[in-house]
Amino acid sequence: MSQFINTKENIVTEAVEGLLSTSGGMLARLDGYPHIRVVVRNDWDKSKVALISGGGSGHEPAHAGFIGQGMLTAAVCGDVFASPSVDAVLSAILAVTGPSGCLLIIKNYTGDRLNFGLAAERAIEMGFKVNMVIVDDDIALPDLPKPRGVAGTLFVHKIAGALADTGASLADVTNVAEKVKEGTKSIGMSLDTCTVPGSPKVDRIEAGKAELGLGIHGEPGFETMDYQDAKQAIAAVVAKLEPLMDDQPHVVLLNNLGGVSVLEMSILANDLINSNIAKKLKFIVGPDSLMTALDMKGFSVSVCPVDANQEQLLNAPCVPSAWPGSKEIKPIAVVEMPDGLSPVTPTPSKDDKTAALITQCCEVMIASEVELNALDAKSGDSDTGSTLAGAGRSLIDALDRLPLADHPKLYSAIGQELSQVMGGSSGVLLAIFFTAVGDAASNGSTTVDALKEGLKRMQHIGGANLGDRTMVDAMKPALDELDNGLEAAAIAARKGAIHTSTIVKAKAGRSTYVNETQLKGHNDPGAEAVALLFEHLSRS
Amino acid sequence: MSQFINTKENIVTEAVEGLLSTSGGMLARLDGYPHIRVVVRNDWDKSKVALISGGGSGHEPAHAGFIGQGMLTAAVCGDVFASPSVDAVLSAILAVTGPSGCLLIIKNYTGDRLNFGLAAERAIEMGFKVNMVIVDDDIALPDLPKPRGVAGTLFVHKIAGALADTGASLADVTNVAEKVKEGTKSIGMSLDTCTVPGSPKVDRIEAGKAELGLGIHGEPGFETMDYQDAKQAIAAVVAKLEPLMDDQPHVVLLNNLGGVSVLEMSILANDLINSNIAKKLKFIVGPDSLMTALDMKGFSVSVCPVDANQEQLLNAPCVPSAWPGSKEIKPIAVVEMPDGLSPVTPTPSKDDKTAALITQCCEVMIASEVELNALDAKSGDSDTGSTLAGAGRSLIDALDRLPLADHPKLYSAIGQELSQVMGGSSGVLLAIFFTAVGDAASNGSTTVDALKEGLKRMQHIGGANLGDRTMVDAMKPALDELDNGLEAAAIAARKGAIHTSTIVKAKAGRSTYVNETQLKGHNDPGAEAVALLFEHLSRS
Repeated sequence: MSQFINTKENIVTEAVEGLLSTSGGMLARLDGYPHIRVVVRNDWDKSKVALISGGGSGHEPAHAGFIGQGMLTAAVCGDVFASPSVDAVLSAILAVTGPSGCLLIIKNYTGDRLNFGLAAERAIEMGFKVNMVIVDDDIALPDLPKPRGVAGTLFVHKIAGALADTGASLADVTNVAEKVKEGTKSIGMSLDTCTVPGSPKVDRIEAGKAELGLGIHGEPGFETMDYQDAKQAIAAVVAKLEPLMDDQPHVVLLNNLGGVSVLEMSILANDLINSNIAKKLKFIVGPDSLMTALDMKGFSVSVCPVDANQEQLLNAPCVPSAWPGSKEIKPIAVVEMPDGLSPVTPTPSKDDKTAALITQCCEVMIASEVELNALDAKSGDSDTGSTLAGAGRSLIDALDRLPLADHPKLYSAIGQELSQVMGGSSGVLLAIFFTAVGDAASNGSTTVDALKEGLKRMQHIGGANLGDRTMVDAMKPALDELDNGLEAAAIAARKGAIHTSTIVKAKAGRSTYVNETQLKGHNDPGAEAVALLFEHLSRS
Repeated sequence: MSQFINTKENIVTEAVEGLLSTSGGMLARLDGYPHIRVVVRNDWDKSKVALISGGGSGHEPAHAGFIGQGMLTAAVCGDVFASPSVDAVLSAILAVTGPSGCLLIIKNYTGDRLNFGLAAERAIEMGFKVNMVIVDDDIALPDLPKPRGVAGTLFVHKIAGALADTGASLADVTNVAEKVKEGTKSIGMSLDTCTVPGSPKVDRIEAGKAELGLGIHGEPGFETMDYQDAKQAIAAVVAKLEPLMDDQPHVVLLNNLGGVSVLEMSILANDLINSNIAKKLKFIVGPDSLMTALDMKGFSVSVCPVDANQEQLLNAPCVPSAWPGSKEIKPIAVVEMPDGLSPVTPTPSKDDKTAALITQCCEVMIASEVELNALDAKSGDSDTGSTLAGAGRSLIDALDRLPLADHPKLYSAIGQELSQVMGGSSGVLLAIFFTAVGDAASNGSTTVDALKEGLKRMQHIGGANLGDRTMVDAMKPALDELDNGLEAAAIAARKGAIHTSTIVKAKAGRSTYVNETQLKGHNDPGAEAVALLFEHLSRS
């Protein structure tokens, strides 16, 4: 599959430019393109300990996305999955380090260790105070002498960054960084490999399988397992972490490796919060894409015990927008359902004249079933007649329980009935119409004005305008004439219905999808129903 | 490919639970599971106009992720890509609406219009003040009478939300929402379809093609085009937006439809900031996953003109962590490269004794080339001898420009030379060693202490400990004995080198990857080189 890149050579510089452009001026870069891609805080005065991180690119938003007050001071961006050069690292150190010194936070990969390490030595030789912490939080391989550094590195950025921001000494900042590093354990799982820009994707993981214990560069996982579901995936990850966690409160970071949908990440979060380690988790960071492996469809979980001091540093506000903040894990708040959801059943009342009128209208619809279905066959699924006839039968059956003597309440009750018995859009639309009519009538509108208000609301919500080839084309002219009597209204409705046969481009409702030639010469079935109704009423 | 879900039926409730658990207690839900999934602010007192949004799920973090002070009050979560029920919407309205009323913000899809619409009518009938704005920002189809609502909806959430938070009236909040909606234009592009949970993926888009003008439910795009690169993708999108943008300053939102890596999104951001509409763009939101179509590998761009009032509301602080904030687009700040990157060339000086010693050491390495290569063949790529011999030849060539009479500077200069002429890790490690030795020597350490400090730094950075089957196994015992004379040091080095032949599990360096039986009985070539060197020096 293609990727949203331009030339392979410029991937990192273009991505850095994109980050800088969208930072609101908070970030700057050193003038070292194309080889030296160092992003720095644009508001940095060298008065405190500087924090520098970096490494290969492809882990965005790490590392440059975490630059800003309270986290990193600078990030050195190598090529995708490749360590930056000694000169690039040294330029970052020289650019941001003041008398308080700097701490390099790197992940445990040979290239990073060596290049950051030599740059540190050179800077020390030049008189700078430089310390380095090497994060090795990956627990994929139980006996590996040199565990990889992965997403847990962000705990070090955040906690050491918050301490540095208080003006603490390099020794103290290094000390807390080492302590956090010691405590941090991470493990990842993925359902698919990642796509390295400009290279074809390696489809290593079979369908139905997952890799457990993988790095952030597309390396194979420590083991391949049968994949069942999100809960099992979390359980597998938790089984590795649990034996290594003491009884202190922990912060957990749920990291999207790049290709998991936000929906799925929330499901994983839910499973994590309810997993075997739940009781040990006090704070959560994410779920979010924080230390990615390009577009890998996987996640990682990092945990770190936090004492009171670290907790405060973890939760201290910070500027970088890529940091989603840490949230205390609390029981879910559940609010009682509000009253009023079940509509109050109106007290039935008798009114023979109203009952007769409703029955009459319903019988018109019942009698027109076949005719309207036939019309609908031209533009829809042949069911307009049946839908309206069914509604008519139901209303007649419901007469006994309707408040026939209280017209405002009656309209609402009819709306309620129709929404329950009519399927699809038409039931909802007529329910909206009658509910709005009832509301207007109960606020003192005349019947005609109430009907007009109902139509207006139905049009607003349904989106149909005059000329869109819907029932509105008959109903609106009819209501506009209704003050002049039923006969005038019926004439207007019929005229409107006939006009729909000339509208060959439907703009609302199902006919939108129908070919012009199929529509020409046939009245819209909804408009026809309205015309039939008014014609019948005007004659009776 | 598998997905991180459990049962299909519980996707939305589990995702909502995940969101709630990780909200730090900021969100609550109504007690309406399984059918009614309504998320509400947990700190809401109904004193202001409430903002309610929602629709089908699958667009996370929209909509529930945007709940919080300054944006939404509640979100109604339907099934994936399906509108929530009238009852669900009504329960949200009843739960959060106070005397100031509420505004429903929905996207222009029939199901949402009808279900939110009918719920609104019911609530109005019950005496609530309810307005509704229907966002239709999609410009994919130029003449479509009912454009879809897509990511631009978030501008309405943010700007109307900020106004509501000031205590403005429902009329004013609705008015600004309508105004923003009128101005907002969006269009999307994708390289692949999305994976609907529990359904097999439809591979509609061919390799090398892109779809332009697509919705957020996996619907096909308005047109399929040949895909070249990120710049062309942005140009195609911009070509659609440009004719519809007036000369006011605009805010632009760059939305990840779910499956694009963060790296690629930054590249797209860079192309967008440099596109034909650049001059009209004043603020940017994102790039970020804001209104997704599950895991779709695509993006959308939304623009909206902002006047001074809207600008202030857009930029007002707000609580929801899914909102990345809007950033003013500014020229990129470029900082000059720091001085000191090119190491000061030391002034050459003469010292015959030192020159002889260096030459002697180099000749040992040159003479051992074949022997060390042969040893390295057992565990590596047969080049230790050649690497060290090459370094020896280079150092002899460099003697004339070295500060032979100033030992502290000499160590650093040797480190500098070696880092330039030796490839791979060994050059960097020896450079670190000599640079650190020079630094210690210039700070007044004795030669032996300086050498020990160099070893310590090299070990810290390289990560090799005693017993890891590296040169450290000979060097450390030799330096520990060096105060007792060269002969004692040579004996210790030899003993250490021989010991490496019994270490069958390498813990650092390349031998880590080599089988035990291949290592047994062979000295580590680095340790052997150290032993040879000390033995030669002790004899001379």
